[in-house]
Amino acid sequence: MKVLVIGGDGYCGWATSLYLSSRGHDVTIVDSLARRAWDRELGLDSLVPIASTRRRIDEWSRVTGRTIRFEELDVTDYAPLCRVVRENAPDAVVHFGQQRSAPFSMIDRDHSVRTHINNTVGNMNVLWALHENAPSAHLVKLGTMGEYGTPNIDVEEGFITIEHNGRSDTLPYPKQPGSFYHLTKVSDSDQIFFACRVWGLSATDLNQGVVYGTSTEQTALSPALVNRFDYDHVFGTVLNRFCVQAALSHPLTVYGRGGQTRSFLDIRDTVRCIEIALEHPAKRGEYRVFNQFTEMFAVKELAERVTRVAREHGLACGIAHLANPRVEREEHYYNCVNTNLRSLGLEPTPLSDATIAGLIGLAREHIDRVDARLIPPRVTWRAEETPPDASAVA
Amino acid sequence: MKVLVIGGDGYCGWATSLYLSSRGHDVTIVDSLARRAWDRELGLDSLVPIASTRRRIDEWSRVTGRTIRFEELDVTDYAPLCRVVRENAPDAVVHFGQQRSAPFSMIDRDHSVRTHINNTVGNMNVLWALHENAPSAHLVKLGTMGEYGTPNIDVEEGFITIEHNGRSDTLPYPKQPGSFYHLTKVSDSDQIFFACRVWGLSATDLNQGVVYGTSTEQTALSPALVNRFDYDHVFGTVLNRFCVQAALSHPLTVYGRGGQTRSFLDIRDTVRCIEIALEHPAKRGEYRVFNQFTEMFAVKELAERVTRVAREHGLACGIAHLANPRVEREEHYYNCVNTNLRSLGLEPTPLSDATIAGLIGLAREHIDRVDARLIPPRVTWRAEETPPDASAVA
Repeated sequence: MKVLVIGGDGYCGWATSLYLSSRGHDVTIVDSLARRAWDRELGLDSLVPIASTRRRIDEWSRVTGRTIRFEELDVTDYAPLCRVVRENAPDAVVHFGQQRSAPFSMIDRDHSVRTHINNTVGNMNVLWALHENAPSAHLVKLGTMGEYGTPNIDVEEGFITIEHNGRSDTLPYPKQPGSFYHLTKVSDSDQIFFACRVWGLSATDLNQGVVYGTSTEQTALSPALVNRFDYDHVFGTVLNRFCVQAALSHPLTVYGRGGQTRSFLDIRDTVRCIEIALEHPAKRGEYRVFNQFTEMFAVKELAERVTRVAREHGLACGIAHLANPRVEREEHYYNCVNTNLRSLGLEPTPLSDATIAGLIGLAREHIDRVDARLIPPRVTWRAEETPPDASAVA
Repeated sequence: MKVLVIGGDGYCGWATSLYLSSRGHDVTIVDSLARRAWDRELGLDSLVPIASTRRRIDEWSRVTGRTIRFEELDVTDYAPLCRVVRENAPDAVVHFGQQRSAPFSMIDRDHSVRTHINNTVGNMNVLWALHENAPSAHLVKLGTMGEYGTPNIDVEEGFITIEHNGRSDTLPYPKQPGSFYHLTKVSDSDQIFFACRVWGLSATDLNQGVVYGTSTEQTALSPALVNRFDYDHVFGTVLNRFCVQAALSHPLTVYGRGGQTRSFLDIRDTVRCIEIALEHPAKRGEYRVFNQFTEMFAVKELAERVTRVAREHGLACGIAHLANPRVEREEHYYNCVNTNLRSLGLEPTPLSDATIAGLIGLAREHIDRVDARLIPPRVTWRAEETPPDASAVA
């Protein structure tokens, strides 16, 4: 299958590109390298050094004999995007090419608008480019479970049947996004649903949980293929951050009480979910939503688990509850459905102590590259507040 | 009350600015004059000639002795917007400053993205400008009833209580926007709700129906105060277009079967609704939604009504069902709640034969300015289709 992977140089995108290539698909990465630029702008860096895009693609070819093509372009720039879609005539487009950090989007007005334009105009361009150049290609778009917020009812997959005043309809599931970043993902979903209804595009919207882990079978084949490992307060996802903190014997920084429950999955399941979506494409005109996660955890539960594993490996490790820089419920009902991907064959990789120990071990290997100042949250949702300090250490 | 009216040079904005000024409020119009530029770009013009912004504001001062200030700026440009908000320290901001035509947003990719950036980035800037400069000001934002689409259940005002699997929550009402323009309004609503939750802004989101009519008591005071009257296929709203067609003895162009039912209101009620929202502001942190319409009509019902009034005035007048350029249900359930504004004192002006006759009469006065080529739809939602021709004349 010919697949364009937009954002294929990023965290999930790189792992997915290699996986799809290893499975025999003809992969072209489309990436603006914006994420690398944002790292430089904010003084951040992957804990594990990553090779340049060219270098890692060449290495993939050397190690496996498989070719991945690379088009450096920004999807907010329409003409080159159309050229690439026309020239490649893809069977599918996997769209990861977005600014994916909630804190980044909350830094200030400029970062919120940049996130908004990058994500939503990029998404519109992808839709128009498919409509005008490849209307039968299957769009696989990465959304987030965060679009739903934390409603007091079960979270279904994209749609919900509502009975009201004696009548009934199946409607888009109500969304309560919690940052300007999350708002862009909701807007994208609405746009994609519209494009399917009106233009007959076919799309799978993957509402992904929080991803943890960094390596896959493919990225492990060579040091030059290694995936990024973000641990900073902007791009680091919670479990990866905790494992770096454990490696440093730094208290695990839980925002608020830590009762915030979220959906999670291992990056090795991410790549498999994308493959499943591609192998079972949406029909022409169909917009479908898969909730892409395998387990639900409260943040404090994860902190306790990492603490235990760290201690078993001889690391002194506590938990620090910080004043929550975000505005979110810290104790709430949370129950999300994820049957669509399971029914198509996903076999979940549950979070194991071995995975946690592996991440801690990886962090220890690169401990000299850690800048501990990048770990505490500095972006607050309410601008009038000063950045929170540690208020308690368990 | 000090009020900024963003988009105060436009159709609803101008009528509202004059009305609020006449009621003793201290009004500053903020407008980029983008709408006048779009008219020039597309070769369109108000049926009734309108004066320049400066000229009409001066005339208002001459006729009434009241001052309206004018700041020419684009809300997508953040720094000048902040300056105006700081300098004016408004009690309230009424935000009409958006591209409001669904067909405009569907012309091509460029127009869809321009609509998206103009509306959604403008909206973000307004939110940030209030957050950073006037956090206690009341934002009154114009949305549209079109955000809801045509669900098979009653349309509530912004939120709906959902019972699901034995649990219950009150959540944002599911939206099914029908054009890139409508998508921007949904995105705006989500952003505003977020800004109220997270920053404690106070906002009233007015989901307005299709507005008809053109004059109010204030715009009628002098020819230089007259409001715009759009009859073209891009900016003309359906009843106004029908009245111009009747004046021309042109068949009334109904898109498809005409069973599309929508919410409507007279522009004289629009200005009153804004006043009601201002007089009863949302509380700090409150996001509330009012459905701003007075009656619901099917399009063919309106066509029949205009035809009858026209014939009573001696005008030969038929109905032409055109192939529908839009993608929408032509027969559907539609029942919308509009109790919030009523309970705060709105006394609806129902559509009367006199109003229809008045619009037909106004069109006849300016009949030499009508360009009949601008009436039939030229923008199709499905790009592969050719523009529809009249398929039947009743």
